[in-house]
Amino acid sequence: MALSIALLLYDRFTMLDAVGPAEVLTLLPDVELKLVAKTAGVVWPDNRAMPFVAPYGLSDVPEADILLVPGGTGTGDHLADAELLDWIRQLHAGSRYTLSVCTGALLFGAAGLLKGAEATTHWAARGQLEAFGATAVTGRWAQAGRIFTAAGVSAGIDLALHIAALIAGDETAQAIQLAIEYDPQPPFDSGSLEKAPAGLAEKLFAGAVALGSRDDRPRPPLPSMP
Amino acid sequence: MALSIALLLYDRFTMLDAVGPAEVLTLLPDVELKLVAKTAGVVWPDNRAMPFVAPYGLSDVPEADILLVPGGTGTGDHLADAELLDWIRQLHAGSRYTLSVCTGALLFGAAGLLKGAEATTHWAARGQLEAFGATAVTGRWAQAGRIFTAAGVSAGIDLALHIAALIAGDETAQAIQLAIEYDPQPPFDSGSLEKAPAGLAEKLFAGAVALGSRDDRPRPPLPSMP
Repeated sequence: MALSIALLLYDRFTMLDAVGPAEVLTLLPDVELKLVAKTAGVVWPDNRAMPFVAPYGLSDVPEADILLVPGGTGTGDHLADAELLDWIRQLHAGSRYTLSVCTGALLFGAAGLLKGAEATTHWAARGQLEAFGATAVTGRWAQAGRIFTAAGVSAGIDLALHIAALIAGDETAQAIQLAIEYDPQPPFDSGSLEKAPAGLAEKLFAGAVALGSRDDRPRPPLPSMP
Repeated sequence: MALSIALLLYDRFTMLDAVGPAEVLTLLPDVELKLVAKTAGVVWPDNRAMPFVAPYGLSDVPEADILLVPGGTGTGDHLADAELLDWIRQLHAGSRYTLSVCTGALLFGAAGLLKGAEATTHWAARGQLEAFGATAVTGRWAQAGRIFTAAGVSAGIDLALHIAALIAGDETAQAIQLAIEYDPQPPFDSGSLEKAPAGLAEKLFAGAVALGSRDDRPRPPLPSMP
């Protein structure tokens, strides 16, 4: 039996949250990845830059060995989405590992999975996470039983390597790291709230450093597809 | 005028090669990302795990400020693909930056762009790169004029942050790094040929450490799409 991974997509997920761990985990032997959305079809990430496709709707995937939930600016739209939260609870009930990246942890919180648990999320969402009864911790990921929550966006790659090791052993995980040449050497050291230059996070919030809009960018046309 | 990025997809590209840099670069202000394939439509990455969609064909995108070419196990199918190599040469002629990730550099080599140049690629493809007249170097990326070649898969994230800094300055690039919480802390230190445990690369080549098949995995069904 292949190891099954259900990867949830929703409007305005962050694409690297999903694709980073998916790249790592699909390098495990004998894995089946299923992209799931509320309804099967095209799903747009929060940068609006490229269409993704979920072949499966929620009811098509009632269980999986691994549940993987990315974050994104669209998370907030689903914190009271009973159908989606029910599905998350259902998948978690039968999963071997239940994983979130970034603000995906807020959906676990909204589903009631993190009460009294240590968890993490994007640095900007720690307060929201605690509102669900979790204790927000720093670090690249946190573990609470079968639930692993990764920090923002790129942290999903680190967590996925850890999960790969739990599933297939250290040597296989190291081979995956070598296969994706993951020897990170970012040109700056500003990847966490604690390491970024003083005041940078505040400038980001205030718009004094402007990044690309994630929500109101026009979407490219879809080609005709079979 | 928005900064235009043409991201080439082809059958059996590596999805993280494409999505890592795309995530970083679409966080720059006022960017338009165009996914391009030989023919507009669905394109499958080398892990066969999820469908991607290229809204544009080659002739739809005759120029761009940035050309971004990912690697993948499918690169080898296009090393004598005159139509594709012509397009790469054409885009490079008018680009501000011409970027490859992983074995994407082999397509630049085949297009004649790397003769006498320092370049890099996935560690396993350095010999192939040199066959095109390049000098293969180690490191996360190499620069030869307007051409920047990144090492394997995840190195595209590091290169994209460097390019973001060239385009918009260090502070904006640092803010992007903070936004994607890119403070990498992999659980192992085996991400390069030089750092991996002795013999691991040989075991990978020999199949003594088995990773997921990238080429013969069944593809999921496509949902009906508009």
